[in-house]
Amino acid sequence: MASAFTIKATIASFGGKLFKLSHNSATTTTPMALNLYLPPKSFTTPTPKVPLLIYLSGLTCSPENCSEKGFFQHRASQLGLAILYPDTSPRGLNYPGETDSWDFGVAAGFYLDATREPWSGGYKMETYLTSELPSTLFNDTEFGKYLDAEKVSITGHSMGGHGALTLYLRHPELYKSVSAFAPISNPVNCPWGQKAFAGYLGEEDKEAWKEHDATELIRKGVWKGKGDMKALVDVGLADGFYKQGQLLPENLEAAAKEAGVEGLTVRYHEGYDHSYYFISTFAAEHVDHAAKHLGLL
Amino acid sequence: MASAFTIKATIASFGGKLFKLSHNSATTTTPMALNLYLPPKSFTTPTPKVPLLIYLSGLTCSPENCSEKGFFQHRASQLGLAILYPDTSPRGLNYPGETDSWDFGVAAGFYLDATREPWSGGYKMETYLTSELPSTLFNDTEFGKYLDAEKVSITGHSMGGHGALTLYLRHPELYKSVSAFAPISNPVNCPWGQKAFAGYLGEEDKEAWKEHDATELIRKGVWKGKGDMKALVDVGLADGFYKQGQLLPENLEAAAKEAGVEGLTVRYHEGYDHSYYFISTFAAEHVDHAAKHLGLL
Repeated sequence: MASAFTIKATIASFGGKLFKLSHNSATTTTPMALNLYLPPKSFTTPTPKVPLLIYLSGLTCSPENCSEKGFFQHRASQLGLAILYPDTSPRGLNYPGETDSWDFGVAAGFYLDATREPWSGGYKMETYLTSELPSTLFNDTEFGKYLDAEKVSITGHSMGGHGALTLYLRHPELYKSVSAFAPISNPVNCPWGQKAFAGYLGEEDKEAWKEHDATELIRKGVWKGKGDMKALVDVGLADGFYKQGQLLPENLEAAAKEAGVEGLTVRYHEGYDHSYYFISTFAAEHVDHAAKHLGLL
Repeated sequence: MASAFTIKATIASFGGKLFKLSHNSATTTTPMALNLYLPPKSFTTPTPKVPLLIYLSGLTCSPENCSEKGFFQHRASQLGLAILYPDTSPRGLNYPGETDSWDFGVAAGFYLDATREPWSGGYKMETYLTSELPSTLFNDTEFGKYLDAEKVSITGHSMGGHGALTLYLRHPELYKSVSAFAPISNPVNCPWGQKAFAGYLGEEDKEAWKEHDATELIRKGVWKGKGDMKALVDVGLADGFYKQGQLLPENLEAAAKEAGVEGLTVRYHEGYDHSYYFISTFAAEHVDHAAKHLGLL
């Protein structure tokens, strides 16, 4: 059987290979781009199945931004970890208004399944990322042989930090650990989140919004009895979006404390902003955090 | 006295700081952008003067590309090395045809002083980089105190690899070592170089072209009696421009061999292309090469 993925490019990086891939998603009803980094270890004989860290990108990003600027490959190469960079939304659906805003629609899928039309047609990033994409990838004739489907962790930046935290809290069976850079931690209480939830889920049912909010999920007890959360969060104190109240990591910390959730480490870094300069500085530590829970360290 | 540089941004990166700077250049008659990375060591008390590695970028690039994607900061941070990312040409002169080509004019200054009008007015990147910029920087009231003017090395990529090699060969007193990624090694014999030299220096005097060609400079004996060249060059074998004959590193190697020049290491890497994925993979080794000759290793 042929691979589900079309290889757009194969690029050597830190001794391993970065594959620029595309596949047709039944969930989003569009082609979906993704980048997959395989470490040098994947090209030895016999080929071992390596653990996988999924990186979810922030608003406006494609799989390229973090592949080029995040510096995850450097440390992943050393440890023998694969990195998956999915896209941030479907592209090409051409829904009215889809490209009018940089913080809604294309490249702003918010890692949930929309329930409001027309977005409910293809904006189903949660199902895509937690079901279709892993199933397709781990069973793929070309790429499945490289990846250990039982050893997956997740991380992300900004909107992708929100995605990593909420997908982890909603699907804990899929991931061994979670981390986030400058995550939108309490989207029901910030402008980005309110705009996205109103658009994708509708204005009415605010309880539905809370199902996609890391702070609210912890507050309602989804992690009760689940033990150590294995969560690392980094925030830059010179991050303009943090200062504007788009991120609200303190609310996440407070919710965890109130709910008695342990194993959430939130670190604040003086001078760091919202950019890939921030991400690249701490990327190795997030790779190490995942690696520890994936049995590589 | 006020600093000659306007600080456009200060960005935390790998524990140090990246300054996005601008100053008015008398040489180019324009404002010139540059980025300067200072390692964590620069912010200790008492503040030591640290060595400097100058990185010259390739065609189409500004100081941003390598600052974001090259990952020199990662290793420079560990060793206590500053990195300077100058721009690739003057901008804003508005000479006729200046922005018509991606490989001539703006962002394609080729690291020489043009002799042909109108380019001779402001396209004087050699004088700018070997005289005005270091003089301004090392004597600056704000930034001079951080930098050891006696310990400077140079590196670069593609057109910037050509720049690093030729400026090093023409001004050996300024630099302790040189390295290059995928350099345009013999520009008189490749389309990029021929277009640039014809435009900046004129069609007639081909001997003048050879003064800005690393291979021809070595061939005519400029390194005679100068001992070890302290030069590291990396080339990717999947580099499309290498395959097209734009780089010609074999000619550089042959010239060095014929001229009896020692200390030129040229390495060829299977699978690597012309991009920052290639540069970032080997950036730490180029930082280490410089650091060794700058007394840091």
